[in-house]
Amino acid sequence: MSYIRKIYNYYLSEDKQLVRKLKPILGFTPNHVHLFKMAFYHRSMNQDDSGTSYNNERLEFLGDSVLNAIVAEYLFKKYPNKDEGFLTKMRSKIVKRNTLNDIADNMGLDMILSEYSIGKMSSSMMGNALEALVGAIYIEFGYDKTSEYVIKKILMNYLDIHMLELKDDNFKSILLEWCQKNNKEVNFKVINKSKFDKRDYFNVGVFINGEEIALGEDFSKKSAEQKAANFALQFLKVD
Amino acid sequence: MSYIRKIYNYYLSEDKQLVRKLKPILGFTPNHVHLFKMAFYHRSMNQDDSGTSYNNERLEFLGDSVLNAIVAEYLFKKYPNKDEGFLTKMRSKIVKRNTLNDIADNMGLDMILSEYSIGKMSSSMMGNALEALVGAIYIEFGYDKTSEYVIKKILMNYLDIHMLELKDDNFKSILLEWCQKNNKEVNFKVINKSKFDKRDYFNVGVFINGEEIALGEDFSKKSAEQKAANFALQFLKVD
Repeated sequence: MSYIRKIYNYYLSEDKQLVRKLKPILGFTPNHVHLFKMAFYHRSMNQDDSGTSYNNERLEFLGDSVLNAIVAEYLFKKYPNKDEGFLTKMRSKIVKRNTLNDIADNMGLDMILSEYSIGKMSSSMMGNALEALVGAIYIEFGYDKTSEYVIKKILMNYLDIHMLELKDDNFKSILLEWCQKNNKEVNFKVINKSKFDKRDYFNVGVFINGEEIALGEDFSKKSAEQKAANFALQFLKVD
Repeated sequence: MSYIRKIYNYYLSEDKQLVRKLKPILGFTPNHVHLFKMAFYHRSMNQDDSGTSYNNERLEFLGDSVLNAIVAEYLFKKYPNKDEGFLTKMRSKIVKRNTLNDIADNMGLDMILSEYSIGKMSSSMMGNALEALVGAIYIEFGYDKTSEYVIKKILMNYLDIHMLELKDDNFKSILLEWCQKNNKEVNFKVINKSKFDKRDYFNVGVFINGEEIALGEDFSKKSAEQKAANFALQFLKVD
């Protein structure tokens, strides 16, 4: 058997294996197997500087946007009487890194991802792969089918939307509770107050044991505190 | 003529006027006139606390997401060899407030917007109305037609994509130049350096004439400075 033939067979069987593993996860057999394979390629796989790199970051860029739009429309229709503030909060609860990581984990994407990455897998690689997968599905099927897929197979299967609705999004109180539990002293300080568009504008810092760990800014002190607390929670990896 | 009839006629004629004005801007006659009207309603028009408010914020939420996805796909296809970093930068140049405000202005949305808002119009109301308009178009036509419309009628008509490509996105150098021209003293200071995920993490503040006006944070000092400078430019309304 020729060398080229051997390589051909090797990749063919690799693709076949991927399809075999993907089918139960996706519920369909992908046509553009190379795209779906790319969705699982972490950039750690190709660190060379030559030309276009083969990894999932472009697909992730596309999938992230498409997912955002699908979730926005889903919420817009599901909550016809809620205002923009509620919709924005709900969307960020759904598309935030930790939620996507959990979904990807429950979908079993880690099994595939581990084959295409070097070294230790971080949890954020999971959410990124999920976004890249949405990007691949989008290229294969277009918007409407991807939307149907995301809503039925991902959101409805792996998310409890009503739980999310109830989930505390008072970041300041979550942070205060976490600090109390972990014996840390926490302070919120207005670092700067200025005028923007003739309105007061606040810069608030979060200090834990005297060290500034996050900042937030907005037109109200309360809202700047919430933003700072949210950043602090991300920084501390508190979910 | 009965009172109800009079009101009916009034609104009918108001709708007709709106359609007459919208048609040359949109290039089509909208079916869901109420949606397109809502796209121009600034929240200043209804400040009551009773139930759902009639303004463009929900449509803006939807339109913002849809626009983001359309632009992401457009760039993904237009630049098959560019990496995610380039695509993200290009997208933010396109969908950023100032760009959208300019597009809305050039489209003539201010003429319609001024009828549905109280008091002085701010430029950001223009970009918001454009996003809300995309939301309305999306509800009327679905994703594919909206995408075609946004690309052909908005992006290609009102944006010079190659100019945007070349446009300086070194926010720090833009800010330094602006400060020099306006005789202001500017400093970048690392306010805090910590560890995040075992990597260095920098909080950088921008000080103008000694006053802290913006903050940025990231894994490299350079990138944190860029973010801080970008916020500062937004704050100072420098385009």
